[in-house]
Amino acid sequence: MKLSEIARRIGAQLKGGEVEIRDIAEIEKASSGEITFLSNPKYLAALKKTKASAVIVPEGLDAPIPSLVCKNPYLGFAKAISLFREPPPRPGDGISPLSSLDDPAGIAENAAVAAFVFAGKGVKIGAGTAVMPHVFIGDGARIGENCFIYPNVTIREKVIIGNNVIIHSGSVIGSDGYGYVAADGAHKKIPQAGNVVIEDNVEIGANVCIDRAALSSTLIGEGTKIDNLVHIAHNVRVGKHCLILGQTGIAGSSVIGDYTTLASQSGVSGHLKIGKHVTVAARGGVIKDLPDGVIVSGFPARDHRQTLKAQAAAARLPKILEMFRKIKGESNG
Amino acid sequence: MKLSEIARRIGAQLKGGEVEIRDIAEIEKASSGEITFLSNPKYLAALKKTKASAVIVPEGLDAPIPSLVCKNPYLGFAKAISLFREPPPRPGDGISPLSSLDDPAGIAENAAVAAFVFAGKGVKIGAGTAVMPHVFIGDGARIGENCFIYPNVTIREKVIIGNNVIIHSGSVIGSDGYGYVAADGAHKKIPQAGNVVIEDNVEIGANVCIDRAALSSTLIGEGTKIDNLVHIAHNVRVGKHCLILGQTGIAGSSVIGDYTTLASQSGVSGHLKIGKHVTVAARGGVIKDLPDGVIVSGFPARDHRQTLKAQAAAARLPKILEMFRKIKGESNG
Amino acid sequence: MKLSEIARRIGAQLKGGEVEIRDIAEIEKASSGEITFLSNPKYLAALKKTKASAVIVPEGLDAPIPSLVCKNPYLGFAKAISLFREPPPRPGDGISPLSSLDDPAGIAENAAVAAFVFAGKGVKIGAGTAVMPHVFIGDGARIGENCFIYPNVTIREKVIIGNNVIIHSGSVIGSDGYGYVAADGAHKKIPQAGNVVIEDNVEIGANVCIDRAALSSTLIGEGTKIDNLVHIAHNVRVGKHCLILGQTGIAGSSVIGDYTTLASQSGVSGHLKIGKHVTVAARGGVIKDLPDGVIVSGFPARDHRQTLKAQAAAARLPKILEMFRKIKGESNG
Repeated sequence: MKLSEIARRIGAQLKGGEVEIRDIAEIEKASSGEITFLSNPKYLAALKKTKASAVIVPEGLDAPIPSLVCKNPYLGFAKAISLFREPPPRPGDGISPLSSLDDPAGIAENAAVAAFVFAGKGVKIGAGTAVMPHVFIGDGARIGENCFIYPNVTIREKVIIGNNVIIHSGSVIGSDGYGYVAADGAHKKIPQAGNVVIEDNVEIGANVCIDRAALSSTLIGEGTKIDNLVHIAHNVRVGKHCLILGQTGIAGSSVIGDYTTLASQSGVSGHLKIGKHVTVAARGGVIKDLPDGVIVSGFPARDHRQTLKAQAAAARLPKILEMFRKIKGESNG
Repeated sequence: MKLSEIARRIGAQLKGGEVEIRDIAEIEKASSGEITFLSNPKYLAALKKTKASAVIVPEGLDAPIPSLVCKNPYLGFAKAISLFREPPPRPGDGISPLSSLDDPAGIAENAAVAAFVFAGKGVKIGAGTAVMPHVFIGDGARIGENCFIYPNVTIREKVIIGNNVIIHSGSVIGSDGYGYVAADGAHKKIPQAGNVVIEDNVEIGANVCIDRAALSSTLIGEGTKIDNLVHIAHNVRVGKHCLILGQTGIAGSSVIGDYTTLASQSGVSGHLKIGKHVTVAARGGVIKDLPDGVIVSGFPARDHRQTLKAQAAAARLPKILEMFRKIKGESNG
Repeated sequence: MKLSEIARRIGAQLKGGEVEIRDIAEIEKASSGEITFLSNPKYLAALKKTKASAVIVPEGLDAPIPSLVCKNPYLGFAKAISLFREPPPRPGDGISPLSSLDDPAGIAENAAVAAFVFAGKGVKIGAGTAVMPHVFIGDGARIGENCFIYPNVTIREKVIIGNNVIIHSGSVIGSDGYGYVAADGAHKKIPQAGNVVIEDNVEIGANVCIDRAALSSTLIGEGTKIDNLVHIAHNVRVGKHCLILGQTGIAGSSVIGDYTTLASQSGVSGHLKIGKHVTVAARGGVIKDLPDGVIVSGFPARDHRQTLKAQAAAARLPKILEMFRKIKGESNG
């Protein structure tokens, strides 16, 4: 594809000569005939050495090779990938004869249901949605349009999924919440009779668990993106456009505001209210409510600058104690 | 259902007038015709504002609406849910023609085996047990009576499961333990030839991993409840009626006493002996044996009060160091 | 089996009389007619009490019962297990009529493909490999020889797997990496168009997630062993013969050197370079590059001895602050 054609398709401005591009690659790995991208000026050195034939760059950057200038070069890069690489393969439209559907009437005509899919009574699947092999969809669950449900996903009964939702393999949507009451020396199960609601444009990574509410709905807000191995307990309400990174856990009934980021391996205790635009750093463990806009880290989590100061102080502590012992000697002496 | 009928069925005492109840809901979400519950006096304010028509309360609490008085209101609530909500749907009794069973004779007549279930040689499944789609049951595995095995569960060969056990989707029971020996610059696999034994009334969350023992049995004791994404390594022995919360890990060969709680994202090192009635707080990391009845937190875990003191001190450390510098100036000056 | 025969087969030297052995067991659980093993002198007390009829021991150790002396007794133990216990059961060679394969021609004649396996277009499976029920293999994926793919594993399109690889149940190889770009108040997906390459002799535990690269390959080096519930993000390159223990996470684009150990519940931030022969202790959280050979712990991770000193100091901090207050009084007074 000609570089000028790529420019047109990703909405970039061409700088430098025309060139034929056949693939896209990372800046250190690109070879002749490939386009690469640079969003961060710290990779300028790599740009000088790259063998790529063209590069996607932010405004105001002069590249030594033909370039496509974008306001948001990372977005340009995302669009350019789609020009050279195939989307994930999906089954052809229609219902595989090797699937088992209790109510085929609920499946839109141009949805794709693969082999070994099981769907229970009253299941609805919208147009353009692909359901890959070994997916289980429980009674009364509804999946919207243009979703992609990867192999080995479990969607339990009554779960509601919006449009353009992606769920990666091994994830479980609507498993029972963890609720027991102590009686007679044992833990009696509290029935988990609610459901899970996933709004539009959500993406859920692999081997994620989102538990159903006890009575109402566990909610994942529009546009939120969840990474692998995340645990979201019953009755949690995650806002819109949140980022929840790998191996994070949110305990029961907590509410997470819109545009909040929970970085990798972080945790939020139960029954908390976390504001909007909050950032919990990696490994942060939140044990009390947080207002909008704060950046917290550490366990228990608090203001990130305070955490850094405390970490620095703690690192120096052994030396300080030594000095302290001397002074103590002096002051006692 | 009449409130007096609910009282009778959950074993509560009716206070206030008769009223017709059609559903059950959380205290802030309940509307007219619904019953709700209150176990903690701190929600008294919510009780004043609730639109519910009745409430389940502990003894000694005066509610402004008709109430059902219970010794254990949370237990009453659990029972009441079952009066208004359906249990999880299950396949009809019998063996689906879309399953693949090597030995159908081992399946009790009134067990339910769904489509796409695979069960190997010598598998036994007890009466009343439901096995949902895409479950794998390896050679010689035995599942007791009245169990519920959710979709996409893997039960490896020789695993023994008692009665009334619930296993949620994506969990793996009996995967190989992590055992290698260094030889010739590589890690040689130690065969993992034992099994897993799950006693009666255990519930296992979604995407849990319980590894088989190298030679004998990894054991989960009666009545223990395991949350999502928990890792239990080979040769571990978990006692009876334990609570193991989300994303916790127990390393190889450790022994956990009865009625012990491991809160979310906690960890126990290998070859340890943890007592009965121990509580490890969220994120606690246990690296040595613990006697009965202790409450520990932090990493490395120690007495919870000590952890709190140390955390408070660490938080104040930057300020203290500043003061320390001043004093040092004075004492040196 | 005669003890002398076991000696011959595991390459050990027989000491003490001949005896018939019928099974192998742990030292505290062994009974008459069983062989056990001792690699660590601290179990000498247990050896004196064991009811085993023979024991595998290191050189230079005098056992009170007939013994097999090995340079590497743990390796001898590993070999001995195989003499008494069956390997995991596998389907017979050939393709189950209950599987669904788009291109059966790509399956080697003596590979075993079980019921309910799905394999897409252009999939290749090598000789001696067993693919268990409910495994999904995406278009163009290739699996080498003598691999064992356990039930409910997902292998996405274009993933390349070497020889003698074991993948345990529930693991997902090649799920999309977590890549988004902020635009118009939402997170736009960056297509994840690369793949995953797993080299020879790798073992991957249960419910592990290894994401595909954005453009090139996420790589797991030869002989590396990965425990349960591990998260490996896109573009990561793990070296050869690494040990990655339970619930560990490696963020995007990091590079891990050969023979490095990441202990349980540890984490590595993105875009880091970790050396060879590094040890990250349990719960360690690495946030900067590490040279070869270091042992680090804590979060943020640093030299393990420093962490221990800082932990000890932190534990004493509350007392020290008390003393400090006194001195302050004195020095101010």
